[in-house]
Amino acid sequence: MKGRIFAASLTPLNREHAIDDTRFADHVRWLLQNGCDGVVLFGTTGEGNSFSVDERRAALDALIDAGIDAGKLVVGTGCCALPDTVALSRHAVEHGVEAVLVLPPFYYKNVTDDGLFDTFAALIDTVADPQLRMWLYHIPPMAVVGFSADLVARLADSYPQTITGIKDSTGDQAHTQMLKARFPELSVFAGTEGFLLDFLRQGGAGCISATANITAPLCARVRDTQDSDEAETLQERLGKARLALQKYPATAVLKACLARRTAHADWAIVREPLSAFDAALLPELDKALEGLL
Amino acid sequence: MKGRIFAASLTPLNREHAIDDTRFADHVRWLLQNGCDGVVLFGTTGEGNSFSVDERRAALDALIDAGIDAGKLVVGTGCCALPDTVALSRHAVEHGVEAVLVLPPFYYKNVTDDGLFDTFAALIDTVADPQLRMWLYHIPPMAVVGFSADLVARLADSYPQTITGIKDSTGDQAHTQMLKARFPELSVFAGTEGFLLDFLRQGGAGCISATANITAPLCARVRDTQDSDEAETLQERLGKARLALQKYPATAVLKACLARRTAHADWAIVREPLSAFDAALLPELDKALEGLL
Repeated sequence: MKGRIFAASLTPLNREHAIDDTRFADHVRWLLQNGCDGVVLFGTTGEGNSFSVDERRAALDALIDAGIDAGKLVVGTGCCALPDTVALSRHAVEHGVEAVLVLPPFYYKNVTDDGLFDTFAALIDTVADPQLRMWLYHIPPMAVVGFSADLVARLADSYPQTITGIKDSTGDQAHTQMLKARFPELSVFAGTEGFLLDFLRQGGAGCISATANITAPLCARVRDTQDSDEAETLQERLGKARLALQKYPATAVLKACLARRTAHADWAIVREPLSAFDAALLPELDKALEGLL
Repeated sequence: MKGRIFAASLTPLNREHAIDDTRFADHVRWLLQNGCDGVVLFGTTGEGNSFSVDERRAALDALIDAGIDAGKLVVGTGCCALPDTVALSRHAVEHGVEAVLVLPPFYYKNVTDDGLFDTFAALIDTVADPQLRMWLYHIPPMAVVGFSADLVARLADSYPQTITGIKDSTGDQAHTQMLKARFPELSVFAGTEGFLLDFLRQGGAGCISATANITAPLCARVRDTQDSDEAETLQERLGKARLALQKYPATAVLKACLARRTAHADWAIVREPLSAFDAALLPELDKALEGLL
């Protein structure tokens, strides 16, 4: 088996817009039992930056208490304020997670690679834990600030034990393949399953995907059949499902799908500033997904 | 006297990159004694989003303990996570500050006005303090997410006791004047002193400016002479000084100037991800500022 499937997990809320620990554990368990090799918490789809440091730590504690294997988790920890990123990263590594997935500080625009390097150097040196494994989270459509390939190289050269992966959420297959070619020592993950089969066959590390909250079983079939012709038909279906889903705001549409699958209406709740999905659009989505998943 | 001058204060750091409370109080006091009607803490220039909630609360506590009049302070409190914005806003209003200056949540892009309205409604309803006065912080070059005029109208109509001002950091005089014309009930502040005289003469509320950390005395002379011909010569100098300074990254160059004026080298320290100013450029800056301030 080559390559791994990660879902960037949704974060379930109750009517007070607080994290529902029980449904969170249920969903993470479902993902791990339905095709995911691991689960990323508090990425973009998981509304990570909409929760306080305390909320994020408490939710991870609750998942571990509920019996989720920390070794299957990767935790988003990148904030604007370095002390917050340090606190979250330290907490995650103390729980024994596989890695932390770290955004660059994203408030200040036009920062230099030197400034970003200094940020990550200070982060790693302050956490100062030999168990720390860090995946860089490159998502310029949202963070605006990103990692140049030269910055990735400088970080990977300076902290080879710590910097072990990168998630490329540009959605640009050529860019993901460039990173894989230039950084064979890193686990390069595509931020989409849209070209999963190609990427797995080229030896890519796999994908970390928002839509895998829904598509995980089909992603897993592509992963498991990658050496056969069948995989191509499956990837075609997977690509179409991804396209159908990404027409809508990711968190809202995926939560609406979860609300229906679990028959738990509160799954549709998002935290401000996001807006809940218009359920009237579900029939249109169903039609687009028909026969795919 | 018509209109007010606010500096968006720099935040002094020590060599551990922690806030230096003593120098912070000294600087705020200097600004208030050298032309500023009030001081904004933890705006963009003040590296607000690079500090944790705890650091920001402790620094405000220390300023109050040092004898700074809370009524002269406006505090930046807008974070990505609503609970953080609530905590900072509540803390600031409990100290009796004039207002809080609030960024929209800025991680998620392409959010709707409905989603932003819900965020501010939840913020105001949760803080639930009749003393709360809120100025909206519109700075699309940095936050990317901004306030449409329709959103400003909806918020001001729904919370007329709370929403009392807006800072327009587009740098676009026409936009600032549009806001002033459309919202006569709000204090509309320009984010620059570049067109201060014009704006004061039209009845604008004044400016909240990064460069006022340096230019405050000259800003004050324009404010105080606005009805005389002398003001035009002063404004011309002020506009040139602003242009000279804004060629460089704002926080770094202004901190370098403060380091020299106070003969305290640590003033030049910035927090990651910003980079310190290259002191070799100071002679070039001095030449551009010659005879202006």
